[in-house]
Amino acid sequence: MKYDIKIPAPVLVVLSLLVFGFNPVRQNKITAPPDPLPSWNGGISKTTIIDFVTKTTKKDGKDFIPVADRIACFDNDGTLWSEQPMYFQLAFAIDQVKAMAPQHPEWKTTQPFQALLEGDIKTALAGGEKALMQIVMTTHAGMTTEAFEKTVKDWLTNATHPKTKKRYNEMIYQPMVELLKYLRSNGYKTFIVSGGGVDFMRPWVEQAYGIPPDQVVGSSGKVKYESLNGKPVLIKLPEINFIDDKEGKPVGIHQYIGKRPVFTAGNSDGDYAMLQWTSTAGGYPRFGMIVHHTDAEREWAYDRQSHIGKLEKGLDDAAKHNWLVVDMKKDWKKIYPNEK
Amino acid sequence: MKYDIKIPAPVLVVLSLLVFGFNPVRQNKITAPPDPLPSWNGGISKTTIIDFVTKTTKKDGKDFIPVADRIACFDNDGTLWSEQPMYFQLAFAIDQVKAMAPQHPEWKTTQPFQALLEGDIKTALAGGEKALMQIVMTTHAGMTTEAFEKTVKDWLTNATHPKTKKRYNEMIYQPMVELLKYLRSNGYKTFIVSGGGVDFMRPWVEQAYGIPPDQVVGSSGKVKYESLNGKPVLIKLPEINFIDDKEGKPVGIHQYIGKRPVFTAGNSDGDYAMLQWTSTAGGYPRFGMIVHHTDAEREWAYDRQSHIGKLEKGLDDAAKHNWLVVDMKKDWKKIYPNEK
Repeated sequence: MKYDIKIPAPVLVVLSLLVFGFNPVRQNKITAPPDPLPSWNGGISKTTIIDFVTKTTKKDGKDFIPVADRIACFDNDGTLWSEQPMYFQLAFAIDQVKAMAPQHPEWKTTQPFQALLEGDIKTALAGGEKALMQIVMTTHAGMTTEAFEKTVKDWLTNATHPKTKKRYNEMIYQPMVELLKYLRSNGYKTFIVSGGGVDFMRPWVEQAYGIPPDQVVGSSGKVKYESLNGKPVLIKLPEINFIDDKEGKPVGIHQYIGKRPVFTAGNSDGDYAMLQWTSTAGGYPRFGMIVHHTDAEREWAYDRQSHIGKLEKGLDDAAKHNWLVVDMKKDWKKIYPNEK
Repeated sequence: MKYDIKIPAPVLVVLSLLVFGFNPVRQNKITAPPDPLPSWNGGISKTTIIDFVTKTTKKDGKDFIPVADRIACFDNDGTLWSEQPMYFQLAFAIDQVKAMAPQHPEWKTTQPFQALLEGDIKTALAGGEKALMQIVMTTHAGMTTEAFEKTVKDWLTNATHPKTKKRYNEMIYQPMVELLKYLRSNGYKTFIVSGGGVDFMRPWVEQAYGIPPDQVVGSSGKVKYESLNGKPVLIKLPEINFIDDKEGKPVGIHQYIGKRPVFTAGNSDGDYAMLQWTSTAGGYPRFGMIVHHTDAEREWAYDRQSHIGKLEKGLDDAAKHNWLVVDMKKDWKKIYPNEK
C-alpha cells in the first residue's frame, strides 16, 4: 500500500538540508585543514615534524603509537623561552637578593651575594652550578610554598627583560607553543623537563604553554609539612631535593613520569642525556629535536662557545642520532607571540 | 511562488526520523541517566559523593571548581585495593627474597631476611618502617628499571593471594574503580598518592584504575643513568629517594602534582596529613573520605588496633573535619570486580 502526501517544496528543501546539507563531516571534506604550525616556515623542519605526528597517529599504520604512550618532553630554558643574557630564574633570584638584602647585611661581604649586589654576575656565577643553586635556594626558601608562588607571580607582572623590555613570560617561543598545541591535539601528553626550579615554573607555565603543574618536572628544594599558627603549611627548605639536569633528566623522567618519551626537544648539552634516553629506546618511532639559536637579530645566536645553553656534543652527534636541528633564523617565521 | 511535490509517505517518514527521531540529545531527555556508582548501596555515603561532584561541576554555581583545579588524590593500600594480611608489595618482596636467596647465603643469618626466609613475618617487620624499606630496597635494586617492571608484571601474573586465591590485582575495590571513573568523567584528574613504591605500582595501575604512570605518586629509591653494554639504562639503587607516607604525603603532592587537591581518599592514619592538607585549604569546597574496613566476611575488619592500616586519629577527627567515613560492609554492594 502506498500513500502519497503533498508536501510544499520549501519544507522538503529544509528537511533535505537538515539531513544532508548540514553534515559537518561532509563539509570538512571540502575545506583544507588549517596549518597547525603557522609560525613555522615551510621546509625540512616543519615537514619532518608533521610527518612524524601524522605517521604515529595513523591507526593501523606500522608506526602507530597508542595514545597512552604518546609522551612528549620539552626542556624550558632556551627551548620554550629565551635564556639570555642569563637564565630568567637567575634574574628573578637577583631581584629577590636585592629585595632581601636589607635583612642580610652579611651578604655585603659574602659571595656569591656580594658580587650579585654589586652587579657582577660573572664573579657570582664563577662557582658554577653550586653557586647558582646556592643563590636559588637561599632566595627560594624560608617561606611557605604559597608565599613563594605569589612572589613569582608578582615578579612576572612587574619585571621586564633588559633588552626586549618585554615581560619575561612574553618571551616564550610562539612556534614551540604551536608545536605543543599541535602535539596535544594529536593525543600527545606534553611535559616540561627542565633544569629550572619546579616551583618557579608552575605558577605560569599552564597559561603560557597549556602544560598543567603536575606535568612539570624540574629541579627542586626540599619542603616540610608543619603547622603555622594552627594552619598546616609547606615550608620551603634551603636544601636541594633534586637537580633535573644532564643525566638527571632521564632520572627525572623516570621518577616523575614513569614512561620513556617518544618525543623530546632541547637546546643545549644539558638535554643530551634526555635526547639519548628517548632516541635509543626500541619499539616505536622516536623524535629528537634541538633548537639551535642562530638568530642574533630577533633573539640570540650561540652554541659551542656559550656558557649559557652550551651546545657542542648535541651538534656533533645530531646526525648520528637522527635528531632534527631547528634553525631558529631560517625555520621560525616569528619568535615571540604578538609579533607581526 | 509555491511548488507542490508528491512524495511517497515512507520516504517522508524516513526523512522525518532522520531529522527528529535519531536525535541523541532528545533521546537522553527521556532516559534516566545510568547509575555512575552501581556497586555502592544507596545511602548517605553515595549521596554525599554525588552531591559533591554535582555541585562542583555546576557551571555558575557558587561551589563550581574549574576543571584545572579538579585534583583528586587516592591512597592505594587499603583504599583502592586490599592490604591484608600484609601489604601486597611486601608479599612481592618476600617472593623476591625467596627467589634471590640462593645467590645470597648471608641472608640465612641476617635479619630481616633470615626471618622472612623462615616465614616469620612478625620478626622480620619488628624493625618497623626501616626494616620494611630495607627489604623493599634490597629486593627492588641492582637491576634496570625495565627489568624490575617485568619482574612485577610476572609476579602479578603468577602469584595468588593466600586467602582469596585471587591474583593480587584482582583484589582492587570495584566501588572505588567506579568512583575514579565517575570523577574523571566529571573532569577530575585522578592521582594515586601512596606509601607504596612507585615502580611497583606503575606497571599495573593504568589497567586496574585507569590512572597513567605519571599520575602515580609513591615512595621511591634512587636511580642512576648509565651505560650498559653501550646502551643507556636506569639502574635502581638500594637507596631511599623519598618516603610518601604520613607528613610525606602533602610533601609528595607538592613535589609531584604541584596543586592542592580538592578531593582526597585514604583509609589509615598514614593518610591523615594528606586529608588535613586537602580539607584545610580555603577557596573551593573540599572532600575528604576514609574507607573504614568493617567487613570481616567479604574483606577484613580492622581499625584502631591494627598494625597494618591503623586508623585511630582519623576516626576520632573525621566529624570535626567533615570527612566521610565509608562503611565497607554497609556501603559497598560488592568488594572486588567479577563478583555477583
